[in-house]
Order: sequence, then structure tokens, then C-alpha cells
Amino acid sequence: MCGIVGYIGENQAVPVLLNGLSKLEYRGYDSAGISVYHDGIHTIKVKGKLAGLREKVEKDDKKSSHIGIGHTRWATHGVPNEINSHPHNSQNGKISVVHNGIIENYLELKNMLIEKGYTFKSETDTEVVAQLFEDLYDGDMVSTTRKLLEKIRGAYALGIMCTDHPDILVAVRKDCPLLIGLGKGENYIASDIPALLEYTRDYYLLETNEIAVLKNDGVKLYDINGKEIKKEVYHVTWDIAAAEKGGYDYFMMKEIMEQPEALKKTIQPRVTESGIHLEDVSLTEEEIKNCGRIHIVACGSAMHAGVVGRYVIEETCRIPVEVDIASEFRYRNPILAKNDLCIIISQSGETADTLAALREAKKQGVKVLAIVNVVGSSIARESDDVIYTWAGPEIAVATTKGYTTQVSVLYLIALYFARVRGTMTEEAYTAAVKELHDLPEKTAEVLKVDARMAEIAKKYANCENAFIIGRGLDYAVAMESSLKLKEISYIHSEAYAAGELKHGTISLIEDGTLVVAIATQESLLEKTVSNVKEVKARGAKVLAIATEDCTAIEDVADEVVYLPKVNHLFTASYDVLPMQLFAYYIAVERGCDVDKPRNLAKSVTVE
Amino acid sequence: MCGIVGYIGENQAVPVLLNGLSKLEYRGYDSAGISVYHDGIHTIKVKGKLAGLREKVEKDDKKSSHIGIGHTRWATHGVPNEINSHPHNSQNGKISVVHNGIIENYLELKNMLIEKGYTFKSETDTEVVAQLFEDLYDGDMVSTTRKLLEKIRGAYALGIMCTDHPDILVAVRKDCPLLIGLGKGENYIASDIPALLEYTRDYYLLETNEIAVLKNDGVKLYDINGKEIKKEVYHVTWDIAAAEKGGYDYFMMKEIMEQPEALKKTIQPRVTESGIHLEDVSLTEEEIKNCGRIHIVACGSAMHAGVVGRYVIEETCRIPVEVDIASEFRYRNPILAKNDLCIIISQSGETADTLAALREAKKQGVKVLAIVNVVGSSIARESDDVIYTWAGPEIAVATTKGYTTQVSVLYLIALYFARVRGTMTEEAYTAAVKELHDLPEKTAEVLKVDARMAEIAKKYANCENAFIIGRGLDYAVAMESSLKLKEISYIHSEAYAAGELKHGTISLIEDGTLVVAIATQESLLEKTVSNVKEVKARGAKVLAIATEDCTAIEDVADEVVYLPKVNHLFTASYDVLPMQLFAYYIAVERGCDVDKPRNLAKSVTVE
Repeated sequence: MCGIVGYIGENQAVPVLLNGLSKLEYRGYDSAGISVYHDGIHTIKVKGKLAGLREKVEKDDKKSSHIGIGHTRWATHGVPNEINSHPHNSQNGKISVVHNGIIENYLELKNMLIEKGYTFKSETDTEVVAQLFEDLYDGDMVSTTRKLLEKIRGAYALGIMCTDHPDILVAVRKDCPLLIGLGKGENYIASDIPALLEYTRDYYLLETNEIAVLKNDGVKLYDINGKEIKKEVYHVTWDIAAAEKGGYDYFMMKEIMEQPEALKKTIQPRVTESGIHLEDVSLTEEEIKNCGRIHIVACGSAMHAGVVGRYVIEETCRIPVEVDIASEFRYRNPILAKNDLCIIISQSGETADTLAALREAKKQGVKVLAIVNVVGSSIARESDDVIYTWAGPEIAVATTKGYTTQVSVLYLIALYFARVRGTMTEEAYTAAVKELHDLPEKTAEVLKVDARMAEIAKKYANCENAFIIGRGLDYAVAMESSLKLKEISYIHSEAYAAGELKHGTISLIEDGTLVVAIATQESLLEKTVSNVKEVKARGAKVLAIATEDCTAIEDVADEVVYLPKVNHLFTASYDVLPMQLFAYYIAVERGCDVDKPRNLAKSVTVE
Repeated sequence: MCGIVGYIGENQAVPVLLNGLSKLEYRGYDSAGISVYHDGIHTIKVKGKLAGLREKVEKDDKKSSHIGIGHTRWATHGVPNEINSHPHNSQNGKISVVHNGIIENYLELKNMLIEKGYTFKSETDTEVVAQLFEDLYDGDMVSTTRKLLEKIRGAYALGIMCTDHPDILVAVRKDCPLLIGLGKGENYIASDIPALLEYTRDYYLLETNEIAVLKNDGVKLYDINGKEIKKEVYHVTWDIAAAEKGGYDYFMMKEIMEQPEALKKTIQPRVTESGIHLEDVSLTEEEIKNCGRIHIVACGSAMHAGVVGRYVIEETCRIPVEVDIASEFRYRNPILAKNDLCIIISQSGETADTLAALREAKKQGVKVLAIVNVVGSSIARESDDVIYTWAGPEIAVATTKGYTTQVSVLYLIALYFARVRGTMTEEAYTAAVKELHDLPEKTAEVLKVDARMAEIAKKYANCENAFIIGRGLDYAVAMESSLKLKEISYIHSEAYAAGELKHGTISLIEDGTLVVAIATQESLLEKTVSNVKEVKARGAKVLAIATEDCTAIEDVADEVVYLPKVNHLFTASYDVLPMQLFAYYIAVERGCDVDKPRNLAKSVTVE
């Protein structure tokens, strides 16, 4: 996921590009760059966030221009560095391209171009587009673009400029967003409306393979056959703040609702009818069969994902799994064997404690498999293997789609290992694979509990303490649910193994204390019901999250939110959803800044 | 969890029942009641503590009787009120029952009885037992009890009387403790020895489903088939004064101050200049050398002792150690190897979750070593090996000497194993043994911090939330310190690995929030100081517990309590002492009932 922006018009291009990119930083921020026309194509790029690009551009004496394209990147092909960052130019320097998406057949095209004598500077698929455009160039921008579209496969939004036509900017898209902004004496392209909202409220919404040709004084649209077409102008009525958040009040809610899509991207390319495919993993079958213990090391929510992973991996693979807090693992002189495996989890891939733990494991000669969201991040680079969560950038400090995609990757690992180790029956394996494949769609279903959670949250918004209890996998979810509530609503919430509460902590339960009971494990239901009775007898208000088969909880809880019954291995992925929503609505009711809770930072790069 | 008592004999029943119950109040105190035979069953019950029952009984004119049963309750089914309190009588009023435990199939039985026309007054499972007994009654107490045992499922200790047999008291148990006290012309039943210690020192320890029939002049025992059996008499040698407060306001303070003595009894008989002697342990050197993993399983404070044990055993023996919450261990299908060792920790030896975990481990063929305080308790009896903590009876619900003696036994195990495995240098071993030997005396020294902690507690008595942070062994102590504060002062305190706080929970820190930082590990000091700075920057008030070499904490904490520098393996035993005192004085300042915190019971014999 990346953000692109383009400008052509009577004013200076650079301020519009930089400003536009700043509004798109939520789409990625590991490198950025712009190209402008100033006696030919002039390109400026940096690794890192936009502030660096702004600084570099300010010092540049060729930045004056009336046309330009810009890009903020979130790496998918190649590590984030200056060479891999966009825009990419063709060999003769005449063509400059910004690109969001993936060109699936880029390797094939690259080999073809190399044979023709083209040399490549970067590892990206985008450079292939620039070179191919040069190769196909026939003097006409529309005709060349049409030829380009015939050759490339994949998903893309492209902005293209050429020194032969400094009065033309070309835009085209397929499966990636791209908008044409319509101004007076100037026109724009951008991945998303917020990038342009301070310049215009009028847009063309480009459809697949419609080609837009922008000039100062107007925009012409062509279909794939080169025939000019007419489109309605779309007029935006939202305000800027809402636009960035896709209409939601907070990024957190946007990201909660993005979970089905994020899970789809993370799971489905790796799941077919024949099983799980982890092309990224270099562990041999021999290594998986001989695996001694697995050490899952992470911080915060990623560590809670690890606790879910522990249950699922132990059950399916019968490998002992230990979950460690990264800051503890590192200093406790952990006992690691050569045939152990270390699984390191971090959304940002830059978490300092986790990175240090990774290095400790590597130092001891243990193989490290990382689960990371940000491509090319330190943890991704230093691990032996990486499985990416394709969650896209996560902006809200409290993770939601980051966590659920991490959990889904742990499922992939569990099932992949179980197959290799022969620890699941064919029938159980097939059923689990099917269920995992369908998880994104079921997630969308479960998220319909949204309005109900908003209602329930109103009742409990004034509580100052809460206990979240569960057994087994439900306890793992209780940990994450409790952290969500803490982080954004500042309620002192604490997770407890349901059976452990009575060993001391139950003394805190008094009239009206909120207890959330998670009860989705049918085999443990009777015991959990007993624990709920214990807190009810002390006056607690009990909200239960249960699966449809766990109705016995209804007799003892004040309120039950039911979830569909699923394969018990995967319950954690569903249980957490109402609790994310619950935490969100409680925080909103309490007037908290949901996306930026006090004292916290998105990725913790100090120990 | 409840306490039961029963009397039959030549003297008045009521004084024995009330006195016995007063000694069992540690097992629960939310309601109490007695039944005596006085022209039929006569039952007196109250909600609340025993004092209320005593008052009510005094005014009663039908209290004269030579047979009776009594009960002090810790609610599991139904709120604590008069109707739900025990004893429960059958519909025709002929049968009266006291019960400790849970009848799992009570709903099913209740429905069956309702269909037969029985009506129920209470929500309890115990009333079902009384009604069922009436339903099954065939004129013979033993035969009816046998029929009853065939019908009920769950855990129970039962005392039963019937108007048809005013000369007979029946007792039976399964998974809940029950003793038969043997007197002259009188006999007794009770959940625990202290209840009867002033009447007799001779007992039968009843086993599962053994039926005891008590009469004035003797006790007969039958197995489940109705066949009479013989048992050995168990003779108690303890001192009765050991169960008195000895001049302190609360048992808890008495027990805090008894720690040097308790540790001396636990450690010193097992430590000589030549090393550690664990005569009680049957594990061979071969078994210790080949030990795969160690699973420490316990609940509450005993589990926190296990966390200390984990650090010390891993470091000294290089055996991977996993600590499990008993209620979780049992149900997560733990991965145990034949050469693993399970260490079970329980003060009472009757903790239901822990007992169940023990049985799970045994079932899987793993050797079990128990650390237990109460001789002859279920866990002691069922384990392969027992190392007793000679802490003496612990009456205060919040454990102190129970915990520190458990920790000291874990040191003994660690050093004993390390010697066998050759994982410590002779020099390090000798130094550690010497230090362990001196631990009781140093404990007495450190307890002189008493007055200082009383002063500090005054400052923080009004706080409602607290976080206790530390790294490594200090984190283990933070867990126990936090639980102490919770249990008796009702402050919502939570322990955190110092490095983990910033991954979410730090959002709860605001102006004046109490943070206790434990900093006794010199190698981790710098990092812990950084974490303290993080919370100070958000306005926290910081109380530090540090060793004399960790003075850097002084610059960032509001207050530092220094402890002597000791061998780093043993710091946990000292750090916890000021925190026990801190919790105690805070609770006193807040006017809490230190020895009997609300909702809690001393030994948790339900799951």
C-alpha cells in the first residue's frame, strides 16, 4: 500500500505534491519521493518519512515546476531505501512513474527488457513500468499507455509523465484507488480524496483501465480502446478530517472495519484446497519435524497474539510453546536448544525490546521466524524467515487489524507445521484449513455486532475498574481485550484466568464491578459458569461473550453477546471483535482521544 | 468452599459446634448455621459472620441437644443469604445436611425431584442432597447414603442427620476434606483439625466415599459397598497455642513476624555444611540428571512462589521451567514428557484446582513433587514426593509465611538439583548454600523495616490504583506484592514487567498514581531506572524497593526502602517483606478486616 499524488497547472507543483503526500502518509511512510519537470525530469527521493523529503526538496534549486508526481511508500517489493523508493524513471530519463500496487508479471517483463539492453537500478516492479513505457513509446501518451496496459498484469494505480510532453500528466488504475481532482487552470491525481480536499471538491472516480490525460485547462478520459469517454463529476461534501478516516470518526474504527480485508490479504493467498502454503518460510520439513520447543517473543498485543498461538500450536503440533515478554526474555538468560524455534512478533518490525530479543536468539544459534507487518523493517531484515501480515498501515495506536492478522499467521504456521509433523488427522486438518479460509468473511459477519456493542458500552462507560475472565483460549483473548480497554479508555482493567480470580483478586469485586466473561470453549463452560456465579454472588455486573452453543451462561450473566459457533481453534479471532468495539465505544463515551491515547506511541522503539 | 463440623455425644452439641465453626471461619464466613436434634430437626441460620449465629443461638430455647451439625459458608451457588445458608433440610423435615463442595449434576437431580413433587426453598446444590436423601431413604442410614453416593456427582464433604436416628451422625467425603475426631463418649466430624483440637488429638482421615457412622460410643467405617473397614488412628502433636494471635492485632502480622522461625524450621534441618539434604525426596540422581522440563503448577501466591522458583531453577540447573496456573494447566491438555517433573505447590494441600492438576500430571505418568504446608492433606497424600514447609498453621487469608517458606523450598530444590547436575561451580554452590542457611536470620533483620513501612503506608492509603513493576526476579516479587495489596486493601493493584508497561498500560498512569518499583538486580538496574523515569514523566508517585547497591534509583524515585545486598538468587525472599508490611498497613489504615478480606477464603477447595 502506497500513496500517489500528481499536479499539473499554473501554480507551483512542489507544495501541492508535498502537502498531498502528507495527507497520504497513513498509506505508508517508509520512503517518499517526487519528480517534477525542470529542463527534463528531476527526481528527489529519500528513505524514511516525509519530513526528510521536505527538507531535501527545500534545499533543491531545480524544484520550480508546473507539473509533477509524488509518492509515499509502504514497501512490498524490496526493502525501503532510496533506490527502491518512487518515482522510478526510465533508462533514457524521459519517463517518470509513480505506482501503487503490484505488477504480477514484472519479472518476466524485466527479463525481456534486460535482453533488449535495459539495465535496472532498483528491485522494484515499478521500474519495469517506466522502462516498458520507454520501450513502447510511440510519441503519443495515450496510445503508449494503451500498449502498456496490454502488457502488464496485476493491480496498479499509475501516474506517468514524459519530457516530450511537459504539458500532460497521464493517470490509469486497476484494483488500486486513483482519483482525478478537477481545478481551475490546474488538475490533480491522488490515491485518496484527503490529499486534494483543500484544493478541490470535484472529482472523476476513475474506473479500471480508464486513461486520464490531464492538462492545465482540462481533463480528457479515454477507454482502453482509445475512445474518448464522458464521466460524471463527483462532488465531495465531507470535511477533511472525516475523509482521511474514510468516513469514520477515528482510525481505530476504520481499522476495526478493515479487518475482513486485511485478513483476506493475509490468509487467502496462502490457503488453497490442498492446504497451507508458506512460500516465505525456508524451514525444512526435517527442521519442523525435529523442532524441540517454540519460543514466542513479543510485547503488548503482539505478545497476546502469541498466547493464542501457544494454545493453537501446542494443540495442533504437540510442540511445547513458551510465550515470553520480550523485555524479560532478553535478560533472563533463556534456555534455548539448537533445534528450538523462535517466533518473533511485531507489527512495526521496529519494537526495540523485541528486536533485542531476536538478536539474543540469533546469538544463541536459534532459528528465527518473524511475523511482521512492515516490509523491510529491522526485524524483517534480521530474521531467518518472515511471514508478513498484509494488514496495511495501522495508524491508531491501539492495534486491531495488526493483532488479528498476527493471530491468523500463527494459525497458518500451526496448520503448516501440523501437516508436516502428521499431528492432525487429515479430516481435522481439512476442516481447519477450510475454516481458516473462511475467517475473513466470518469476521465481517461478526463485526455486525457493532451497534449492539455501542449500546452496551453506554451502560458501562463510567466504570473505573474491570476484570475480564476466561479459560484457555478465552483467557488469551481476555488479555488482549483488557489491554484494549486500558489503552484507550483508561479503565483499570485486568485479565484473569477465570479459575484464578478466587485466589485473591475476587476481594476487589463489589456491587457493580464490571466483569466480562468470555465463554466460547464448550468443554470449559460449566467451570466458567461457576466462576461467573462467584462474582455475581459478590455483586458484579457480568457481560458475557459466548458462542451459540454456550447458552448456559445466559442464566448467570446480565448480558450476553453471542457469536457463531466455529472450530474451537479459531474462536480467539472472533471473541476479540466485540471487545475491540466495546473498548472503542467506551473510550468514545468517555471523551478519550481514541487514536492517540495519552502516554503511548504507535511503535515502541525504546526499551 | 466451606467449613463443616458435627458432634454426637454425652455433652451439649451447640457449644462444640459454635467453637468448631469459629476455628473454621478461615474457610468462609458469608453465612453460618447449625442443626440440632430437639424433638425433631431444629435449624438456626444467619447471613454473615459467626458472631451473628452465636447471638441467635443464645436466644433460642430449643438449643439443648446431644447431636448436631454446623456449617460456615463461602458461597458458590446462590448469593450469601439466610435461605441459602446451611444446614439444608429435606421436605419432610426429617433430614438435615451440611455440605462443602459442589454437586455438579444438581440441576438434573433437582428437576427429577421437582417432577416427583418436591419443592425447593433455596438456590443451593446442597438442598438437593437433603431432598434426595429423603427420596432414597430406606430406613437405614448407611444403605441410604450408599444410594445417595451413586446418584450425586462432584466434590463433597457431607454431614447428615435424620430424626429417625437421633443417635447416629453420618459423614462422607470426596475431594473435599473431612476428618472424624475420636473422643470418649463423644465423637466429631470437621473439615480441619483446628476445629477439634481442644477436644481430641485422635482422628480418622476419611478417604473418598468411605462412610463414617458416628455414635456416642464409637465410630464405624464402611466402604461404598457397605462393607465395614478398619483404619489407623492419626494422632496430632501440634501445639494449640500456635493458632492464636499471640498479642498481634491480626493473624497476618503475627504470621509476617513468624517468618524467620518458619524459615528456620523449613530450611535449616535440610542444610548442612556439606550441602542440601532432601531426605523426603525419592527422585534418583539419574532422574534429576535426565529431567526434561519442570512444570510448576499452583494457584495464587503459591503460583507466584513458582515464578520465583522458575528463575532460580533455570539459572542454577539449566532445566527449562514452565509455571502454570492450576486451573489452566488442567484443561489445556499440557504437553508432558515421561522425564519431566511436576512441582505442585499448595499451602493447605487441599486447593481443588491444584489437586486436579496433580491428578492430570499423574495420569500422564509424570512424577509429582509437592510443596505443602499441611501434613496429610490430599495433595501431600497423592504426590510421589512431598517437601513440607514447616510454616505451622496459617490463619490469615493473605498468605505470608506460607509464601516465603514455599520459595525457600524451591531454593532447596534448585540447589539440590544443581549439585546433582553439576551445573554450578563448587564455589557458587557453597556460597549459595551458606546464604540460604542464613536466610532466616537475615529475614528477621529485614523485618525491622516494619515501622518505616507503617509510615510510608499512611501516605498512600488513599490510592485506588497501583502498579508494581520489576524485571526478572523483581517481576516475580511484583506479582506477589500486588496480590497482597489487592487481597487485603482492595486497591486495584497490578504487577507488570517493567519493560512491558509502555506497551499499553502506561496510559493509565496519571498525576499521583502509585508505582512501586522493585530494583534489586544490579544488572537490570539501568533499564529499570529508565522505566521509572517513564512513569515519573507521567506524574506517578514512585516508591522503590532496592538493594544497597542499586542507589541509582534514588534519583528518580520519591522514596526508597533499601534492603541489604545479598546473593542475587535470593533477593525475592527479602523484597517481598516490606511489601507484605506495606499491604498490611495500608489495609489497617483503610479500616479493612485484614485477616478476613471480603469474598475470600483461606483454602480454595472449589474449582
